[in-house]
Amino acid sequence: MGGSGYAAQELVRLVAQHPHLRLGWILSRSHAGQSLSAVYPHLRGLVEGRFGSPDELVDLARSVGVIFLATPAGFAAEQAPALLERGAAVVDLSADFRLDDAGLYERVYGRPHPHPELLSQAAYGLPELFGAEVARSRLVANPGCYPTAALLALAPLAAQGLLAVERPVVVSATSGISGAGSQPGPMYHLPVATENVRPYGVPGHRHTPEMRLHLGRLLRAGAGAGTGAAGVELAFIPHLVPASRGILATCVAGLREPHDTDELTQRYAAFYREAPFVRVLPPPELPETKAVQGANFCDLAVRWDPGSRSAIVMAALDNLVKGASGQAIQNVNVLMGWDQTAGLMGAPLYP
Amino acid sequence: MGGSGYAAQELVRLVAQHPHLRLGWILSRSHAGQSLSAVYPHLRGLVEGRFGSPDELVDLARSVGVIFLATPAGFAAEQAPALLERGAAVVDLSADFRLDDAGLYERVYGRPHPHPELLSQAAYGLPELFGAEVARSRLVANPGCYPTAALLALAPLAAQGLLAVERPVVVSATSGISGAGSQPGPMYHLPVATENVRPYGVPGHRHTPEMRLHLGRLLRAGAGAGTGAAGVELAFIPHLVPASRGILATCVAGLREPHDTDELTQRYAAFYREAPFVRVLPPPELPETKAVQGANFCDLAVRWDPGSRSAIVMAALDNLVKGASGQAIQNVNVLMGWDQTAGLMGAPLYP
Amino acid sequence: MGGSGYAAQELVRLVAQHPHLRLGWILSRSHAGQSLSAVYPHLRGLVEGRFGSPDELVDLARSVGVIFLATPAGFAAEQAPALLERGAAVVDLSADFRLDDAGLYERVYGRPHPHPELLSQAAYGLPELFGAEVARSRLVANPGCYPTAALLALAPLAAQGLLAVERPVVVSATSGISGAGSQPGPMYHLPVATENVRPYGVPGHRHTPEMRLHLGRLLRAGAGAGTGAAGVELAFIPHLVPASRGILATCVAGLREPHDTDELTQRYAAFYREAPFVRVLPPPELPETKAVQGANFCDLAVRWDPGSRSAIVMAALDNLVKGASGQAIQNVNVLMGWDQTAGLMGAPLYP
Amino acid sequence: MGGSGYAAQELVRLVAQHPHLRLGWILSRSHAGQSLSAVYPHLRGLVEGRFGSPDELVDLARSVGVIFLATPAGFAAEQAPALLERGAAVVDLSADFRLDDAGLYERVYGRPHPHPELLSQAAYGLPELFGAEVARSRLVANPGCYPTAALLALAPLAAQGLLAVERPVVVSATSGISGAGSQPGPMYHLPVATENVRPYGVPGHRHTPEMRLHLGRLLRAGAGAGTGAAGVELAFIPHLVPASRGILATCVAGLREPHDTDELTQRYAAFYREAPFVRVLPPPELPETKAVQGANFCDLAVRWDPGSRSAIVMAALDNLVKGASGQAIQNVNVLMGWDQTAGLMGAPLYP
Repeated sequence: MGGSGYAAQELVRLVAQHPHLRLGWILSRSHAGQSLSAVYPHLRGLVEGRFGSPDELVDLARSVGVIFLATPAGFAAEQAPALLERGAAVVDLSADFRLDDAGLYERVYGRPHPHPELLSQAAYGLPELFGAEVARSRLVANPGCYPTAALLALAPLAAQGLLAVERPVVVSATSGISGAGSQPGPMYHLPVATENVRPYGVPGHRHTPEMRLHLGRLLRAGAGAGTGAAGVELAFIPHLVPASRGILATCVAGLREPHDTDELTQRYAAFYREAPFVRVLPPPELPETKAVQGANFCDLAVRWDPGSRSAIVMAALDNLVKGASGQAIQNVNVLMGWDQTAGLMGAPLYP
Repeated sequence: MGGSGYAAQELVRLVAQHPHLRLGWILSRSHAGQSLSAVYPHLRGLVEGRFGSPDELVDLARSVGVIFLATPAGFAAEQAPALLERGAAVVDLSADFRLDDAGLYERVYGRPHPHPELLSQAAYGLPELFGAEVARSRLVANPGCYPTAALLALAPLAAQGLLAVERPVVVSATSGISGAGSQPGPMYHLPVATENVRPYGVPGHRHTPEMRLHLGRLLRAGAGAGTGAAGVELAFIPHLVPASRGILATCVAGLREPHDTDELTQRYAAFYREAPFVRVLPPPELPETKAVQGANFCDLAVRWDPGSRSAIVMAALDNLVKGASGQAIQNVNVLMGWDQTAGLMGAPLYP
Repeated sequence: MGGSGYAAQELVRLVAQHPHLRLGWILSRSHAGQSLSAVYPHLRGLVEGRFGSPDELVDLARSVGVIFLATPAGFAAEQAPALLERGAAVVDLSADFRLDDAGLYERVYGRPHPHPELLSQAAYGLPELFGAEVARSRLVANPGCYPTAALLALAPLAAQGLLAVERPVVVSATSGISGAGSQPGPMYHLPVATENVRPYGVPGHRHTPEMRLHLGRLLRAGAGAGTGAAGVELAFIPHLVPASRGILATCVAGLREPHDTDELTQRYAAFYREAPFVRVLPPPELPETKAVQGANFCDLAVRWDPGSRSAIVMAALDNLVKGASGQAIQNVNVLMGWDQTAGLMGAPLYP
Repeated sequence: MGGSGYAAQELVRLVAQHPHLRLGWILSRSHAGQSLSAVYPHLRGLVEGRFGSPDELVDLARSVGVIFLATPAGFAAEQAPALLERGAAVVDLSADFRLDDAGLYERVYGRPHPHPELLSQAAYGLPELFGAEVARSRLVANPGCYPTAALLALAPLAAQGLLAVERPVVVSATSGISGAGSQPGPMYHLPVATENVRPYGVPGHRHTPEMRLHLGRLLRAGAGAGTGAAGVELAFIPHLVPASRGILATCVAGLREPHDTDELTQRYAAFYREAPFVRVLPPPELPETKAVQGANFCDLAVRWDPGSRSAIVMAALDNLVKGASGQAIQNVNVLMGWDQTAGLMGAPLYP
């Protein structure tokens, strides 16, 4: 549901190559009744048929296994109970279930959550960090693209009690413009956006509380090894760059003790040993967004910077894959008990 | 063999998702002994191992089914006999076997062909047009990227006797810069190449005789329906555009009689009815290179232009896939008697 | 007038560095009353003040020397008489006065011209070819960006009777996306438009009759030296490329006799000896759009192609400068009797 | 001297439009004897003549007013004394005179400085912050592109004693690829670099000590108003983005007290009241690199981020203009006692 956007396009591409999933219906308010190939020129000859109408959604919930909601804010919050009741599992790509606290949700989104009782039932679908939750849930809140990058970058430090929590963590990130969605606008018009870099949403981007919340959960989990700190301050500065896809998040975090780059790299590699989509790069390699283009990987590198007593952690992922639709498929794999890599090991498109 | 170039990278990507092919060895003169992931950062975690040395090539020909040669001009011409003798099928991505006439080869490439006797045994590997040849050959000359686009665009006109052969055909094409190879150079340096369009190799690009030769074969095949003409003049003007991938070839061809766009479109659709990789677009759609990015499709649209008494045919393909490595895999599929789409129906990456 | 578009932005930039022009008012329907720097972030600190309203236009015509109209189709046709009456010279950047024949105008634009009597008074403002007209006119029709490139490329052939008029001329051109204007739209959304090339408006782009008309005038002027032919057929295929600025037009024209590249190059250099903005490149150099970025040059190269008995002429210009606002300033220079290069010799921005 | 690089190209462009400067000679080791327009295609018709040889340099120092050195590391350090002795002022665009301490120079560059006695005579040519030094010097160390952005962004905080010096400042910056110079290389090859973002030089980029040194000078100057702190820790992470030009530096700095965005913006505006090239943007505007493309501006915006008790300061400049050649001209203007804006108020190229 929400078939006109980039997340839906990418879901269609990924479902088409998945061994266990079969595409049932694609619903779209704006394109209901149109043929798929008129809207998605690249899918001609691969996926045929027409867009259905959102009116069919609740009925379909009885006959399908999984419903992906790639819908505007608020839609999933309203519709999820009816879908779950009828037996479908729901993966919500919007932000409606990412915050587990109704009060925080209201402060961030400016309206009360219509079904606050569901917030605690929703799993935060970052399987590398919260996979057990996902495995036992029927409602998955698919994380934001920036939080996916930042949390994978910072988790080994937070969960092992290494962070100096008295210093704010700084997350400076760039995103390709597909991250802003498929709706044209002056800032995304190619003549303006090419050869241009600009920050936006500073401060106060809605992904900031999402990052802080789940980073706090990791910190508390790591408290046995560390200080027991309850949270961490965080500055998040997103930027648009002239590319279609790709997030590069650079995180600077004070650590409680000096480390060195090799030791930190080994910690990261150990932390993600069971995580096939997280590739920890050996020095001197550094992530680049093109190396994950079209694929479900998140590439990480960590450096100890003695000049600022900080760990610098850099993460690259494709915002439409690991940052959205690929992760949604990965969540379904976990939810269904399939191999989490099923249908997701296609190689990145490079160069 | 030739593992450091873009064609080889793309072969590795495509072989990895092929149901019947398994990657054996990747040989590279410049990278022999290095690990694959150090050279191909995007393939980390997908393809492990090290580059072999070209010295192993001839011996390997006894134990592998197919050898892809993505080597500099002249290498395949020298090595092909030894490889064929040892039992391997050979798909040559260089230009060594694309011209069937030793005299023409020498005029174009400035040196005699070392094995002219093989020229007539090599199939010109454009399966939509010359599939029968490919099916019975053990040596396939994989076509150039521009000739693939131009020949698919012009074949329905040539093979059905519609061309007004007294007028030169004009092929004006743009290519992403990966078409120039992986070797950096001043014209491909991003600060110079971004926001820039430039023609090059005008006149006299080496793909011109390749186009003319095979277009002439199609014309002769169509002579029953047409004039019996032996050849056609052709102006070919390639341009570099600021993109990694994608060829857009625009062909302007005088026709013997007036036509209309719908009729021409129907002819094209009929001509390519059995060709799953050629997508003939219904008016008013026109091809765009992004709609084939990473995929083995060639998208075509045809228009009748009364103001110039011409058919205007536009073709889009990914120069590294349908213009090189995807087509090489397609040739292997045909050669082996497999479904020609095996491993090649991955969706384009869009946007 | 028409201050929100790219042509107006570029006029402001160029007027600011002109020795004789001083910016009076910038009128805009959509931005009336807003400060300039809120709309043009790059002009902060350079040009202050607010947009005026279109209602002021006619009154201002009494107090200003020149009015630039960068307005939607039809506006200039309606308003020009009132402006001219009040004493202002008018440079119209829209297409309203580019066709000298009211019947042709109606066929192309689908409505009758409101002031057909002005069509013959308007000069076609391509000073290198029709400078005498411009010098004695008070109403200048500033040419389209593609016609400027194509006419400068073909004029030496047409005006010297070299064209084989029985063969259509083919003009295949690429444009940066600023040529489509400042209004965002799905085809210009960066995620879609980057790494993408696509033809559009094939056949029947509105610049085709403009090219044919003025090429016909040059042909008739050259008839003493040639055949006396009245016109030429022309196929025009425009393409969008992933860049903000720059047109590269490649023209293929049959010639009546064989020539060679050096002789043609010398003819071009001689033809444009007095034209400081036309740079005829010596072989083996070829034009590139970045070499004219931000500047009023049109770079040309010509090649004889024996394989198609054609001259291939390639032209590069910046669509917003020589293709629009720079040429408008050049027309004012000519109209006012100033040096035609006044304020226009700023170097291109490279790389 | 150093005429083959981008800094030299840009100097030529800017000198050509300067009211008081006249280009004398362009010397280049690699291009000596070649015509300028063969190397700089965009300058054809604007600047004629040939490259001279470096052997002429010392002699020329008697007859010219200013010598710009855009040479590899070490050249200026060797040659400066001979040039200064012969009467020329020297603006060095390399890093040879940017560090005022011979010991630090040796630690950073790995070799002793050949003329340490000159280090204290060289002015650090950031006229907005150290203009008095420049005015009385004959040897100017033109700052690095990143330090220019970071120092202009942080100076109002440092010089007014607002920084919480116990917290490291974080500078995360992106640069267009022209910042890496004109030499092609695998990371700058368009197919690899387009649609790609990557960090590099982490940690330990050579601009880090340059930033720390001069930020420390500002801190000490601000000590009367503040804490008297002697220095600050700094993490600097540069990234390459797919663009030719433009630096966007995002600086996150802890402040000693809470502030608010409007108050900080007013402080910045007041601090730079006399600095025509620094444009402090009023909220909610944020800098973008395209708004300074080709121009000598540095655009700044500051925000108070309560969630991290930090000021977030974002700076945009064109690395080849305010980050190199434009600043070099500005330094000459100051050195000569001319208006510092002479020849430098050309508008940015937008879009």
